[in-house]
Amino acid sequence: MKTFGLSMLILGLLLPRTTAAAPPLSDETEGCLECHETLHPGIVADWRRSRHARTTPAQAMTASALARRVSAETVPNNLQSTAVGCAECHTLRPAEHADTFEHNDVRVHVVVSPRDCAVCHPEEAEQFSGNLMALAHRNLTANPVYGLLKAAITRSSHPLTDADACLYCHGTRLVLEGRQTRETEYGELEFPVIAGWPNQGTGRVNLDGSRGACSACHTRHRFSIAMARKPYTCKECHVGPDVPAFKVYTTSKHGNLFSANQHEWRFDEVPWTAGKDFGAPTCAVCHISLVVNTGGDVLAARSHDVKSRLPYRIFGLPYAHPHPRDPDTTLIRNASGLPLPTDWDGRPADGYLLDAAQRAEARRNMQGPCLACHDRSWVDGHWKRFEHVLGETDDAVRAATEKVRAAWADGRASGPEKGANPFDEWIERLWSDGWLFYANSIRFASAMAGGGDYGVFAQGRYHMSRNRAALGQAEAAARTP
Amino acid sequence: MKTFGLSMLILGLLLPRTTAAAPPLSDETEGCLECHETLHPGIVADWRRSRHARTTPAQAMTASALARRVSAETVPNNLQSTAVGCAECHTLRPAEHADTFEHNDVRVHVVVSPRDCAVCHPEEAEQFSGNLMALAHRNLTANPVYGLLKAAITRSSHPLTDADACLYCHGTRLVLEGRQTRETEYGELEFPVIAGWPNQGTGRVNLDGSRGACSACHTRHRFSIAMARKPYTCKECHVGPDVPAFKVYTTSKHGNLFSANQHEWRFDEVPWTAGKDFGAPTCAVCHISLVVNTGGDVLAARSHDVKSRLPYRIFGLPYAHPHPRDPDTTLIRNASGLPLPTDWDGRPADGYLLDAAQRAEARRNMQGPCLACHDRSWVDGHWKRFEHVLGETDDAVRAATEKVRAAWADGRASGPEKGANPFDEWIERLWSDGWLFYANSIRFASAMAGGGDYGVFAQGRYHMSRNRAALGQAEAAARTP
Amino acid sequence: MKTFGLSMLILGLLLPRTTAAAPPLSDETEGCLECHETLHPGIVADWRRSRHARTTPAQAMTASALARRVSAETVPNNLQSTAVGCAECHTLRPAEHADTFEHNDVRVHVVVSPRDCAVCHPEEAEQFSGNLMALAHRNLTANPVYGLLKAAITRSSHPLTDADACLYCHGTRLVLEGRQTRETEYGELEFPVIAGWPNQGTGRVNLDGSRGACSACHTRHRFSIAMARKPYTCKECHVGPDVPAFKVYTTSKHGNLFSANQHEWRFDEVPWTAGKDFGAPTCAVCHISLVVNTGGDVLAARSHDVKSRLPYRIFGLPYAHPHPRDPDTTLIRNASGLPLPTDWDGRPADGYLLDAAQRAEARRNMQGPCLACHDRSWVDGHWKRFEHVLGETDDAVRAATEKVRAAWADGRASGPEKGANPFDEWIERLWSDGWLFYANSIRFASAMAGGGDYGVFAQGRYHMSRNRAALGQAEAAARTP
Repeated sequence: MKTFGLSMLILGLLLPRTTAAAPPLSDETEGCLECHETLHPGIVADWRRSRHARTTPAQAMTASALARRVSAETVPNNLQSTAVGCAECHTLRPAEHADTFEHNDVRVHVVVSPRDCAVCHPEEAEQFSGNLMALAHRNLTANPVYGLLKAAITRSSHPLTDADACLYCHGTRLVLEGRQTRETEYGELEFPVIAGWPNQGTGRVNLDGSRGACSACHTRHRFSIAMARKPYTCKECHVGPDVPAFKVYTTSKHGNLFSANQHEWRFDEVPWTAGKDFGAPTCAVCHISLVVNTGGDVLAARSHDVKSRLPYRIFGLPYAHPHPRDPDTTLIRNASGLPLPTDWDGRPADGYLLDAAQRAEARRNMQGPCLACHDRSWVDGHWKRFEHVLGETDDAVRAATEKVRAAWADGRASGPEKGANPFDEWIERLWSDGWLFYANSIRFASAMAGGGDYGVFAQGRYHMSRNRAALGQAEAAARTP
Repeated sequence: MKTFGLSMLILGLLLPRTTAAAPPLSDETEGCLECHETLHPGIVADWRRSRHARTTPAQAMTASALARRVSAETVPNNLQSTAVGCAECHTLRPAEHADTFEHNDVRVHVVVSPRDCAVCHPEEAEQFSGNLMALAHRNLTANPVYGLLKAAITRSSHPLTDADACLYCHGTRLVLEGRQTRETEYGELEFPVIAGWPNQGTGRVNLDGSRGACSACHTRHRFSIAMARKPYTCKECHVGPDVPAFKVYTTSKHGNLFSANQHEWRFDEVPWTAGKDFGAPTCAVCHISLVVNTGGDVLAARSHDVKSRLPYRIFGLPYAHPHPRDPDTTLIRNASGLPLPTDWDGRPADGYLLDAAQRAEARRNMQGPCLACHDRSWVDGHWKRFEHVLGETDDAVRAATEKVRAAWADGRASGPEKGANPFDEWIERLWSDGWLFYANSIRFASAMAGGGDYGVFAQGRYHMSRNRAALGQAEAAARTP
Repeated sequence: MKTFGLSMLILGLLLPRTTAAAPPLSDETEGCLECHETLHPGIVADWRRSRHARTTPAQAMTASALARRVSAETVPNNLQSTAVGCAECHTLRPAEHADTFEHNDVRVHVVVSPRDCAVCHPEEAEQFSGNLMALAHRNLTANPVYGLLKAAITRSSHPLTDADACLYCHGTRLVLEGRQTRETEYGELEFPVIAGWPNQGTGRVNLDGSRGACSACHTRHRFSIAMARKPYTCKECHVGPDVPAFKVYTTSKHGNLFSANQHEWRFDEVPWTAGKDFGAPTCAVCHISLVVNTGGDVLAARSHDVKSRLPYRIFGLPYAHPHPRDPDTTLIRNASGLPLPTDWDGRPADGYLLDAAQRAEARRNMQGPCLACHDRSWVDGHWKRFEHVLGETDDAVRAATEKVRAAWADGRASGPEKGANPFDEWIERLWSDGWLFYANSIRFASAMAGGGDYGVFAQGRYHMSRNRAALGQAEAAARTP
């Protein structure tokens, strides 16, 4: 008996947790798997390893407040007691999805949207909708100034180019174009034809009118919290040189700790306990996750609206500025009437941005996890440097902007006053390099204590001052009679 | 008894697989190990962990067709029943290796070549010889146009520079220069002196006249399939900015899945099962490996001739083009009679490149593994974008090439018509930046769905359009009286 | 009984080693933990996983010579028999630390210095003090030439900028500014206010007058040898493009082996056995660690003075040169009387640099670990290429330097003879790009056999020759009447 008990203990330790009795599948999901288990073994295997396949919503809702992964108060009866399988997501609200089609007697839609996920995860969906990222498609494509920047960069307005370039991250607008009959292993079948597909950008405009793609970070079909908490996910869009967050992170002390020790960390725990589950922040610790200390006190509340911890937006356009209040940044008007968060001289478009009290609150929220490893003097010392750097980089951007405005004024370049694209001539490109790459790199390096090479030599201060010399050289060349 | 059986089971689970009874070693290999186990502990330890040390060819040949790692129908009798040790490879075909020398009464050669490996792995060696990579030395050094590019880049023709630079990846030509006597721990010994050594480039010209180095990817002395299947191996030569495959991969959704989940994957299985053994493609999945689905159906046949899955060569010289048919690209002649796959205006050197039917077959082969996780509409949507991007990047390269040809025509630069190097003057360098770095980066980002930063900001479209402005600026400066 | 013994064996294998009976804590440390375990769970958890928490100095001193991690002959009695906890480090030598303050009746200092660590690790502290890195603050800030370079790069002399930029790696000078009373969870408490804090740069000037920060590499509060041996630690300061060591490493064969196989390696063993504990060098293997072969012979002695294995300094200022003898490089005078290791034409400041015999010894020391996997001909072949590349890159730097000196001579730029900053004008920036980024990248790629993309296309030879064309273009433009 003793031996048997020990054996079970040992086997329990050896076997992966996935072997806990799996919940029943719905008949519809069983039907899907009959063909797709062989047709699409990769995604079915991912799903089988997911929490969706190993728990029912009813079980998930029994967790204590801090440990809950499902934020719904109630879940529809028919979904409560089976695993969350293919059919549970791909057949929800069929009338609302333009791509719903008959598929072996089931009304299926291809593109699952945040509104589908919200059946079990309404808080996360709601928070995310308050996020700049949820509006990433609109904020780029419906802002005429950014449209000029996009045109100057891609020199194409072809939808296939857009989908391959900016909208890869910003999200495409999905449009149902029609139906198509295809020959398959199971005979002729009809499928929807969707323009803008495939796409997993964070601001995707979906076929039910909703915005976003949870699978941008919670990669299909495992939809894993662990994977979203690792910095590789954020790297998909934030690698640089415009937003060099990942590069800076892996060069920082925090990133070093992650790289060296991640094999010992537990990325799947809810709540996520500093010290016990992880030894240094990943992107998610600072920006999104529910983090507690070993006493169970909340150091940071979970929020998929990242501005709850972001006093500033350090991705300069062209200056750093208090974070926008509304996720729809096309509503902003600066003093010149342009839809930009600052004026050409750096003055913030005040009414549209977080005020001092809101910034103070966001700063406090952000600092919660810092204080799990650092005392107040360390944290304050860090923030003092960071906020100083915001001013200094803005000064450098201002000096460069003045040079470009002078060129617009005296006709060496055609500026916005003449209806010209302010981002496409040589001097304008030099100017863009400065604020889009170098000032941003310096700020990210400072914000994330990535210091060293990224703040100085890798697209940082070295390049910012070199850029100043290049602009000066271009000016001098223009003046030569 | 029950306890004992259980203990064995547990120990079996706990102990590394390498403890399975090791096969006998040949007397010759025992002799090598007597000294080299202490002299070179690193490589001996690697070999002891290798399959070569843990299996005999006879055992390896009993595997079923899909599981076989040895492609030979028969292996010489004397090699069948011992481990594949030092002597088994380093004493093969002594008369054919120019570096064979007497070493403690054994005739040993230093450089093991693909022809040696072909004793057990003839299919892989044969496929590899059909690969551009096998000819990488010749394709660079025997092409006069690429020779000019190499000269413009390295500004040196010293063999030590070549070996340190281009030929690190392309492979050196090994030449026996003589013999040398060295004082060693075991007294005076004579060794061959080999120019071009060390080198593990894929196109190395060996001392038996063969081409290639299996150890480029199957790193000595473990010669591991697992390591070759991880993207770090390909990164040795394909990191950028000319061929930014690794950078794009790790930023893509596929690379994110690899980075986050690789600790759960099995890189050593043959055949390699999508979903079961791995959850997203690495380089090898798409380009080389035998991949099956969970039903055992072949999704992609193994081939070390990568063009079997490559309709295009997207590394532009200067344009993207259908993949060359023959691995020896020095045979190509474009319409102007130059050994280039396209003409200056982008017209492909048709007779030398894959035709439409061959491209369609290569595309089909490449898409096999895609369909393990994606439906047809996803895959087609991806390829449509990719092929659109090929046209668009070629258009951008064409516009830049026209500017340079105009400079050659009107004497602002000295072009090939004047016998000058077309790659060394300032305007020519700007032009090279465009096709060698930026157009290539855009294409790799598109091909591998790496989108985001690599297709736009990190040497992508931002830099391509900036390059256009720089070329325009250079033109304007030249025109100033 | 048999079953029980087996169970213990198995549990021993399954449980992490940290559960070995923990040594007693001092009363003072128990006192610290009472509050800080909850206040700072991250660093307390790190410390609990550390060897400091799991061993006493007395136990550590029983290890055999090669296995010892503590180099002190004797340790003060009061420290011998408890774990090395909070109080053991933060209360040492209170009178010598300017930041010592009363904290709940204990005299605590915030900043632990190498002189504190030297109580148990005197050899390492002594060696480190002979290292350029220990003087990194002074070598940058007290050298007037480098001061001009810093000014040209950062365009700021603000201490917050310095701390965020260059001194992040070089180390800040810590200065006690006063005392501050803060409201805490435990009521009002007084703390020291320290300018330059936080900082973990290798050349930090501490509040006890000592130099350095052991935590730069042995990250607090685990102070792990394993983490310091992984390349991510070195990456914090050596990533590029000025010192692209990490980028080159991960692209080299050695880095590929590390990336693919590190999960099988043992990073915590002392001594560190080639083949058994690791399969390829990390930074530490070549530059610092005690490395032995499987027979226990020493292949490289441990030294925290990295010049013991470095014949050259390949980080050119602006030329590569024999490694400086004295860690204080402000003492160097070149033939022109400047504090630079070479003259403008490349002539080394001989009396201040390693001589031929010292270089030969350093080379021999460095080659010890090479020979664990490579025979003499491989190693010699590698070094021959590397030393050839030093000459070739110096030639390229010399050609560029002559162009800049000509510009200084004829007034196209204002050089040092006129008291001007030699690093801030456009032609000077082009020149800096060449020696600071491109020549360095080529040398690092060669030194670490990273070849391929980093030596050629990623800030290597391609950019070095392009830089030459850019300088030529700038010259031609200046000559245009």
